[in-house]
Amino acid sequence: MALVFSIQLVLLILVQCVRSQQDLISKFQKLRYLKQTYDVQDLTSEDFVAHISPQDGLKVADKISSLPGQPKMPKFDQYSGYVTVDSDHGRALFYYFVQSTNESSQTPLVLWLNGGPGCSSLGGGAMMELGPFRVNKDGKTLSANKYSWNKVANMLFLESPAGVGFSYSNKSSDYKTGDTQTAKDSYTFLINWFERFPEYKTRDFYITGESYAGHYIPQLAQLILKSNENESNAAINLKGIAIGNAYIDDETQSKGSHDFWWYRSIVSDEIHDGIVKHCDFSWQSSVSETCNAYINEENKLVSNIFSYDIYAPLCLNGTSSKTTGLDGFDPCSEDYIFSYLNIPQVQNALHANLTGLPGPWQDCNDDIFYKWTDQPFTMLPTIQRLMGSGIRFWIYSGDVDSSVPVTTTKYAIKKLNTTIKSPWRPWNLDGEVGGYVVEYEKLTFVTVRGAGHFVPSYQPDRALALFSSFLAGKPPVAM
Amino acid sequence: MALVFSIQLVLLILVQCVRSQQDLISKFQKLRYLKQTYDVQDLTSEDFVAHISPQDGLKVADKISSLPGQPKMPKFDQYSGYVTVDSDHGRALFYYFVQSTNESSQTPLVLWLNGGPGCSSLGGGAMMELGPFRVNKDGKTLSANKYSWNKVANMLFLESPAGVGFSYSNKSSDYKTGDTQTAKDSYTFLINWFERFPEYKTRDFYITGESYAGHYIPQLAQLILKSNENESNAAINLKGIAIGNAYIDDETQSKGSHDFWWYRSIVSDEIHDGIVKHCDFSWQSSVSETCNAYINEENKLVSNIFSYDIYAPLCLNGTSSKTTGLDGFDPCSEDYIFSYLNIPQVQNALHANLTGLPGPWQDCNDDIFYKWTDQPFTMLPTIQRLMGSGIRFWIYSGDVDSSVPVTTTKYAIKKLNTTIKSPWRPWNLDGEVGGYVVEYEKLTFVTVRGAGHFVPSYQPDRALALFSSFLAGKPPVAM
Repeated sequence: MALVFSIQLVLLILVQCVRSQQDLISKFQKLRYLKQTYDVQDLTSEDFVAHISPQDGLKVADKISSLPGQPKMPKFDQYSGYVTVDSDHGRALFYYFVQSTNESSQTPLVLWLNGGPGCSSLGGGAMMELGPFRVNKDGKTLSANKYSWNKVANMLFLESPAGVGFSYSNKSSDYKTGDTQTAKDSYTFLINWFERFPEYKTRDFYITGESYAGHYIPQLAQLILKSNENESNAAINLKGIAIGNAYIDDETQSKGSHDFWWYRSIVSDEIHDGIVKHCDFSWQSSVSETCNAYINEENKLVSNIFSYDIYAPLCLNGTSSKTTGLDGFDPCSEDYIFSYLNIPQVQNALHANLTGLPGPWQDCNDDIFYKWTDQPFTMLPTIQRLMGSGIRFWIYSGDVDSSVPVTTTKYAIKKLNTTIKSPWRPWNLDGEVGGYVVEYEKLTFVTVRGAGHFVPSYQPDRALALFSSFLAGKPPVAM
Repeated sequence: MALVFSIQLVLLILVQCVRSQQDLISKFQKLRYLKQTYDVQDLTSEDFVAHISPQDGLKVADKISSLPGQPKMPKFDQYSGYVTVDSDHGRALFYYFVQSTNESSQTPLVLWLNGGPGCSSLGGGAMMELGPFRVNKDGKTLSANKYSWNKVANMLFLESPAGVGFSYSNKSSDYKTGDTQTAKDSYTFLINWFERFPEYKTRDFYITGESYAGHYIPQLAQLILKSNENESNAAINLKGIAIGNAYIDDETQSKGSHDFWWYRSIVSDEIHDGIVKHCDFSWQSSVSETCNAYINEENKLVSNIFSYDIYAPLCLNGTSSKTTGLDGFDPCSEDYIFSYLNIPQVQNALHANLTGLPGPWQDCNDDIFYKWTDQPFTMLPTIQRLMGSGIRFWIYSGDVDSSVPVTTTKYAIKKLNTTIKSPWRPWNLDGEVGGYVVEYEKLTFVTVRGAGHFVPSYQPDRALALFSSFLAGKPPVAM
């Protein structure tokens, strides 16, 4: 299982490391032989009572007066700061919260989580994908994102677990963490955040996110539902979850990735035939030498393109490539965000890095990534339980991502063996096919045409349409 | 066979008709039941002697002084006009010829052919794809195409057969035509064009083109090679052919198209499974009712996207969509070209439409398309003979085209059962993967990443790199 895990994990590796992906692949090839075990705690058996600290006055202190270089735009309030999740360890998670521009007192509250494991929802989700601002090429100023999700919801971005972005712990051993601790800390964060922002306590609450958040989100949802049963806890009004290009099942992730590369005519028939014939990606299997040899050949073929969007231009030498992608998205955005979030005035405005963190803000933390301690081989049993819990469950997929490609999600859903309620059909945005949608019993699956891994970066208008549909609880409109 | 032919033919239908594609699909569904036969003459048995007419003074008359609205750019000579291919019938083919900007007296001569059948190499190839000019949004002015193929070759664009574009016949029965007559007329055109431009008689000569030119080009090449054996004919110095997204084999075209739509997550598993189970696309088979039902369902799903580039925006209401495609190519280009080529001053400058044609210039002629009389079910035997003839043979494929998708070409090449000389590898342009290349014995296959059916429109820089490699007889450079 560990063997399979590590070769997949490389596909989820942080934006920050994209340009050295080739090195990482060879590193992970070695990791495959370590046969680590990944024990995971069953969160359904948790009777978790989160420690609640007093939050008086902290909301006011967290209010952002203005971000350096921000443009004039419709008014909405922004907050950011730390929530302590373990005062003994001095472990605190950083959040960024933007109220909706559209009747924020009525619209739902939505938590957004990026994956990794080890990547920031501030640098990814908020600044590169779906937040109100995009960082300009100068790395100093911001422009408005026309398709920000705070047009329809109050958006809360969490840097999680400790060690990611501005989040930290005073106990370095906390940086060796995994799924279970991440879920518990995220839950503790939420409960305390609701104390700080009590007006949201009864608001409709949703969780969205992508990639390795395919683990985080179902686990957190499960913990919330379980904890809601405990009368000592304040109930969280969880209405639904949506996970995008989601890492949810190691076996289908492996098989689906290899198939995707071949389906897209990136890998030769000969190599793909070899993988199909010689590789077994199931739970207990170990990967054979022959299988490995084919995968090595495959890695060479796929290592030169941007795995998160196979048609996108690369960011070469820190400036955008001349070649245009599907979307006009600037492939060097991560560099601009890195610059921006390391400006001291920006950190001051965000109330971030108050303790003098040892290094610069990074989009993803390699250390967290490599030392990840626990994860289940599959999230499908958790997903099945959530599908029976009454909360809304959507899975979406940008269809030109090769890191957690649409094939892997399709294969995983097939394993759920659920019934089709409304068959696969195109959905419409402005007269164009936005993607395809199929409704299963208690699960909706939506694709986004021409979107890579970071769906709201690559197809911002389609992503906002999809998100609005999710909140409305109705599949996107038909063609 | 006819059954299979007609459902495929719809996929090749002219740019001009894209916005009414849904209607055409249902029209073609009906055509499938007509069970037309498509007899085809074996051009290898032809002992064809083309009639040569005197061409004195015609070259000078064909010289274009300047095209209305053309920009300032590096100097090259342009010519256009008619070559009579049957004086009894008054059948004349229109050509547009642009000399190379790079030592035109040394660089090769390349004939470009669009497909259809029934589409124009002037409106498609020259004005929309690889010629020196692109028509601006105003439909009146031109801008320079930075990646024009006349940077490396003297490019000859032929509107063929009679009935296409400005080409015509005084005998309306000539508009019911097919593969054999098209090959003979194109050959007659060439022989006479060489009389008009005798300096090119001994020049290295190549033929390139796309789509249904997957029929035209191998057939014309075959006729040239056969005719070169006849001492009564002047030999044409044919060095090689390159065909892009080429319609070459009806069986693999059918199977490959259905697979492509499914591979790209455009069609559901259920429909694709039904097609795989119930459809037989081989030579003599008829399509079952059950197969048809699945194909009808599939047609509904695929009818809303631009089949020539599945990620491109549509041209909605005659103006470009706001959504950007892979490439920044304007999806309404065909409209601008239509406007431009119907301006009387433009036609005068081109020496076109001297006889007062009954309708406007059209990119593709429906009448020619629907009344096509003969075509072989497969071009593979012809291709096999050409591969043994000593001329260079390249096939290329823009990998996001669904009309003649990369899968169809891969399946067709598999049927050739040729040996791999150098395995599938990525090729490089400006640090990016331009596509993939595999060298077989006597055949080179190259994909162009992120390109639709009209490769030079969608990925102009990659197309020029590929074309330059083809002329140099070397596969594009490795990553």
